Amino acid sequence: MSQSATTNRRFVLVQHTQPDAEPTPAVWKMESVPVPKPGPNQVLLRTLWLSLDPYMRVRLNEADAYMPSVKKGEVMVGGTVSRVEASNNPAYKVGELVHSYAGWQDYVLSDGSDIIVKLPEGAKVPSWYLGSLGMPGFTAWHALMNIGKPKAGETFCVGAATGAVGQIIGQLAKAQGCRVVGIAGGKRKCDYAVQELGFDACVDHRDKEFASKLAAACPKGIDIYMEQVGGAVSDAVEPLLNLFARIPICGLISHYSGAGLDGRDRLPGFLSNVLFKRFKVEGFIIFDAYPQYYGQFLKEVTPLVESGKMRVREHLLDGLENAPQGLADLLTGGNFGKVVLKVAE
Amino acid sequence: MSQSATTNRRFVLVQHTQPDAEPTPAVWKMESVPVPKPGPNQVLLRTLWLSLDPYMRVRLNEADAYMPSVKKGEVMVGGTVSRVEASNNPAYKVGELVHSYAGWQDYVLSDGSDIIVKLPEGAKVPSWYLGSLGMPGFTAWHALMNIGKPKAGETFCVGAATGAVGQIIGQLAKAQGCRVVGIAGGKRKCDYAVQELGFDACVDHRDKEFASKLAAACPKGIDIYMEQVGGAVSDAVEPLLNLFARIPICGLISHYSGAGLDGRDRLPGFLSNVLFKRFKVEGFIIFDAYPQYYGQFLKEVTPLVESGKMRVREHLLDGLENAPQGLADLLTGGNFGKVVLKVAE
Repeated sequence: MSQSATTNRRFVLVQHTQPDAEPTPAVWKMESVPVPKPGPNQVLLRTLWLSLDPYMRVRLNEADAYMPSVKKGEVMVGGTVSRVEASNNPAYKVGELVHSYAGWQDYVLSDGSDIIVKLPEGAKVPSWYLGSLGMPGFTAWHALMNIGKPKAGETFCVGAATGAVGQIIGQLAKAQGCRVVGIAGGKRKCDYAVQELGFDACVDHRDKEFASKLAAACPKGIDIYMEQVGGAVSDAVEPLLNLFARIPICGLISHYSGAGLDGRDRLPGFLSNVLFKRFKVEGFIIFDAYPQYYGQFLKEVTPLVESGKMRVREHLLDGLENAPQGLADLLTGGNFGKVVLKVAE
Repeated sequence: MSQSATTNRRFVLVQHTQPDAEPTPAVWKMESVPVPKPGPNQVLLRTLWLSLDPYMRVRLNEADAYMPSVKKGEVMVGGTVSRVEASNNPAYKVGELVHSYAGWQDYVLSDGSDIIVKLPEGAKVPSWYLGSLGMPGFTAWHALMNIGKPKAGETFCVGAATGAVGQIIGQLAKAQGCRVVGIAGGKRKCDYAVQELGFDACVDHRDKEFASKLAAACPKGIDIYMEQVGGAVSDAVEPLLNLFARIPICGLISHYSGAGLDGRDRLPGFLSNVLFKRFKVEGFIIFDAYPQYYGQFLKEVTPLVESGKMRVREHLLDGLENAPQGLADLLTGGNFGKVVLKVAE
């Protein structure tokens, strides 16, 4: 089933997910409606690429969190690269590509206010604007440069090392002169982090001796820990954190579904460490940073990605209908690289 | 029993305290030894004032934390205002007053490297250098100005509001244009915070409706929370924290003895809040900040204190022999103001 010029396929939410459960295909239904027509000042966007990302899990809960949850009957949210198919807005010409948040559907109307960026003419790989040059890459850059503030010779550690954010932030930290230690699930990902991304080490969190191997990989402790994971991975990192460690927090994927907790109250111990070891822990939602920093990020990172100096690995899926399974795989670590779904040419 | 010119009374540690217990008088014994004589480049310091502070509790544990624990047979640590009684060091003259860490004793030798600051000639109230112009005042100033970074119109909240740090930081935040809400134990302290220190509100944490009264006192939420307390007080503050709240952590007094925990794992919830609400949580140990900031602090705050613009409340004790009881009272909230102990004229 592929894209049509007259029908808009879209995934709408039919039921929320319990906070401690993983989403199933029954969360959404796909429906077909006519392609809408742009009104005054509007453009019609046609989806070419859809991004699948961990933050989507939070928005399937019934309760609002840092962003409103998706409500029943609403189209599922998602970042897209889209083509302008029709335009009543002088800022956008037919044929131009934009990065927007059209959601899990073929078509959407926009007045331009929700368009993040217009892709430059001749953009080498449009899907990069959903990964290395989009939200995950920007997350990596912002967390490292504005919160982590690395110094040469420090040790940088990231979980989900070959994921959309991990692969970029590790390479950026390496360029800043850090020792870079990744954590990933399985030998294949770990080998890739070291051999292809240039990490100094990468430790498999499924290994029975994970904690001791991580300690061995960080002989001088950890100065910056990019928290994306939470749970058992964080528990192994915490004792290795050095005085004045910085911990940007952009995601706690293993907490999204509430799994893996043993009932012990770890807060007093954590806060004691924050105090005694002078940690700086800073949460951020990358959407806040776009106005101030996205332009600077693109200017710095685009040449690295286009020249191939920065390696980018995508986990490619095909067909809008495969979005639910793709998200489920992502949430359980089944992806290998940034997950992007090709919706149409 | 008062100070002698020939005998040095000192409290040495005879047993450590269990992490979940409060210290008893049996922790120390007082012994009398001859007053030592200064060697080359040394000065002999005579203790006039001894400061009692919450950090002392941590150093009674057997295990080292952010600073080494006091070992058995060692003199108990403590900040002092001392008089130079004899000097072989050209930088110090007999009769000068200094702020140092002589510990719980009458006399100590120093080569000057452990002297924090020489009091200015004619210093109005020497004991202020243990409180508003010493470590607690400096802690307040550093936490507020360098970590909290207040903006006019924001709401600032501090626990232990009439304590050594709380009274200063609240008045400083007020001067920055914040709404200032204190938390203290008992009506007398709360009234003092509002009527004498000029706080906008102060809520009694012993009140059965503490959480709802705190919420009512913070109609626009809390932007900066000075964490000194931990436990149930922090639990009531956490839901009131606004987006982009800043949480300097300088002490967790109620956790020092491990009390008040209900077994629930509060870490995932706390970290989710850090992420979703973009908190900045930063631990600091004030001793790190002296080289860079203590001079600036004195320059800014001394005129406020000396002019009476900033109110300073001391909880005065008398006699070195009363130090153990004074510390015990401090750790259970029995003090009302900065605890300073007069050792001698």
